[in-house]
Amino acid sequence: MSTIKLKVEAVALDWKGTPIVVLREDAGQRAVFIWVGIGEAAAISMHLEGQQPPRPLTHDLIVLILDTTHAKVERVVITDVRGSTYHADLHLRTEGSANAIDCRPSDAIAVALRTGAPIYIDGDLLDRLDKERKESEIEFSPGATPVDPGEATVH
Amino acid sequence: MSTIKLKVEAVALDWKGTPIVVLREDAGQRAVFIWVGIGEAAAISMHLEGQQPPRPLTHDLIVLILDTTHAKVERVVITDVRGSTYHADLHLRTEGSANAIDCRPSDAIAVALRTGAPIYIDGDLLDRLDKERKESEIEFSPGATPVDPGEATVH
Repeated sequence: MSTIKLKVEAVALDWKGTPIVVLREDAGQRAVFIWVGIGEAAAISMHLEGQQPPRPLTHDLIVLILDTTHAKVERVVITDVRGSTYHADLHLRTEGSANAIDCRPSDAIAVALRTGAPIYIDGDLLDRLDKERKESEIEFSPGATPVDPGEATVH
Repeated sequence: MSTIKLKVEAVALDWKGTPIVVLREDAGQRAVFIWVGIGEAAAISMHLEGQQPPRPLTHDLIVLILDTTHAKVERVVITDVRGSTYHADLHLRTEGSANAIDCRPSDAIAVALRTGAPIYIDGDLLDRLDKERKESEIEFSPGATPVDPGEATVH
């Protein structure tokens, strides 16, 4: 599987107020948008903004557990989208072995940011997502609706 | 430190809609009320109700990490309240050693429920909380306001 490195660009809200994490190719322009829960969005954005919570958040506890068990996050990889649900692997190096734990990308990203681990996406998946996004933009772009509804009432 | 075993009784909402976890003495009647975040309340109540989320929640990921690193949660202990903030220790047994990780009780409880680890509270802390709660009930009980406001307008 060839993978492409991503950077976390922002946490935003969609027009319904649902949080989205925006990731972008580290060496390119293609973006990945992942809808996430409120808690995970807070965990990611607090880290991006350099805010220190008064008490460890759940993802800070994960980092404390990793330190205690001498496990290292080598990388996280966004592996798949099934329906509208993204999947990721958290790659953990323990003393004896390398392990990939299937998890939600939001958790993987929150942990990666706190441990300095790199974030990747499967190359074929990024190609597919970018293609789907472009098709959806063509479908909804103003150019696809040649008649201006305001003008239509004049004729 | 003498500790007292607790059981998780319920997740409720206070009158402002903030989630509370209600814990009660395993061998007694005294209760402990801990205000928690929405995500942690969901993690606890989903487990109490036996709901299986379609994807692992953050606390399910913690359990997967503990399994991968061969770490065992021996117990969690609610240790202190500073201001209105509760503190807990997550006691982890790793291959080499025993460790206590300072964390939020909500995270500790969500992990304890998923691993079958027992939940305790410091005995002196429970005495103090129970005393404070009783004093606050006397202060706000109807008996402490002998004049019925409805009747007061008649005189």
